[in-house]
Amino acid sequence: MSNIKFEVPEVVVERLPQYLRALSNLSESRVEVINSQELGDLLQITPAQIRKDFSYFGKFGKQGSGYDIKHLLKQLRQILGLHKSWNVAVVGVGRLGRSIISYPGFQPQGFRVVCAFESNTKLIGQVAGGLLVHDFANFKEVAQSEMVKIAIVAVPANAAQDVIDQLVESDIRAILNYAPKPAIVPPDVKIRNVDPVISLQSMTYYLNEKD
Amino acid sequence: MSNIKFEVPEVVVERLPQYLRALSNLSESRVEVINSQELGDLLQITPAQIRKDFSYFGKFGKQGSGYDIKHLLKQLRQILGLHKSWNVAVVGVGRLGRSIISYPGFQPQGFRVVCAFESNTKLIGQVAGGLLVHDFANFKEVAQSEMVKIAIVAVPANAAQDVIDQLVESDIRAILNYAPKPAIVPPDVKIRNVDPVISLQSMTYYLNEKD
Repeated sequence: MSNIKFEVPEVVVERLPQYLRALSNLSESRVEVINSQELGDLLQITPAQIRKDFSYFGKFGKQGSGYDIKHLLKQLRQILGLHKSWNVAVVGVGRLGRSIISYPGFQPQGFRVVCAFESNTKLIGQVAGGLLVHDFANFKEVAQSEMVKIAIVAVPANAAQDVIDQLVESDIRAILNYAPKPAIVPPDVKIRNVDPVISLQSMTYYLNEKD
Repeated sequence: MSNIKFEVPEVVVERLPQYLRALSNLSESRVEVINSQELGDLLQITPAQIRKDFSYFGKFGKQGSGYDIKHLLKQLRQILGLHKSWNVAVVGVGRLGRSIISYPGFQPQGFRVVCAFESNTKLIGQVAGGLLVHDFANFKEVAQSEMVKIAIVAVPANAAQDVIDQLVESDIRAILNYAPKPAIVPPDVKIRNVDPVISLQSMTYYLNEKD
């Protein structure tokens, strides 16, 4: 399967967790089978797109009989590497960083925030959200010993690029960036931005229109 | 301008806040002029796409001389309705809801969280993140008196659709949904999902590939 995976477009990979989420919710509601039309209705994605996305990974169901949700969930978790858990570091323990450390949604999905970092000497050595705060200067060493593969960045906008450069040098290949500034990373590093303000700003356009 | 606006595709509207964010960062760094190539490099969007997006709203610059950043920022803020501030309600004051109320990124961008709601009677009447927690049953009345136009949903997945239906009935037309479940709304209501887990899950695919 690994030589197939290299050809999968990134937009397809980005949709897989949405399928996973919708199917998990269905499974919790004890739904056992779903077809691409019904799944598409839930996610506002065309059934043809769903079938095409799944086709990158082989056959997930038989034409006409729909997908077995439990089987599909297991396949998707395997493809996405979610059959194991991932250790995560949070960089920046200001108000935002602390709320990320305490965010209740990560652990049940297999993401364990295991260490926290700061460059503010007043915060180093303190405890934030139950975690000892390490000096960011020691990131590489601590991250390696804690088996961290993913970093969450919660530093001010003007510090973000420097911190992210340092993470990349420390062999981090997946970064979730909460700093309100896009950052540049090499092609072999993945970065995603979490920015609720951007989401709000794309809705006020429509509210404004009506005033 | 209002009859032009109705024709703007939603994907274009969703890119405008990203332009705004990048231009604000440039302006803070005292950059005064930028061309579509440079802006495209920052955002990983083609220059042709940027020029096309801007063309929906008239001319923002002269061919060849680049965009005046201050002028462009002002125009974008006006188009997106960000020249005024917006009152926001948070529904659900569990751990996630309280961290949203305390999120430091909203206020500087003109989004003021002015009231909070719960249906858990143990939490109603308490204070969360400095706000009095109202009974969600009184949402419509309180939201109207507080001039709330936007709601942020931070309730458990299984309660989200009911809460969102209630918001829609209370004339809310813009919803930021932190519940880990997609919700269905009428076409005249905008909804955006904030879900850091989905973002993490789209990166583990690439980490998994290497193991």
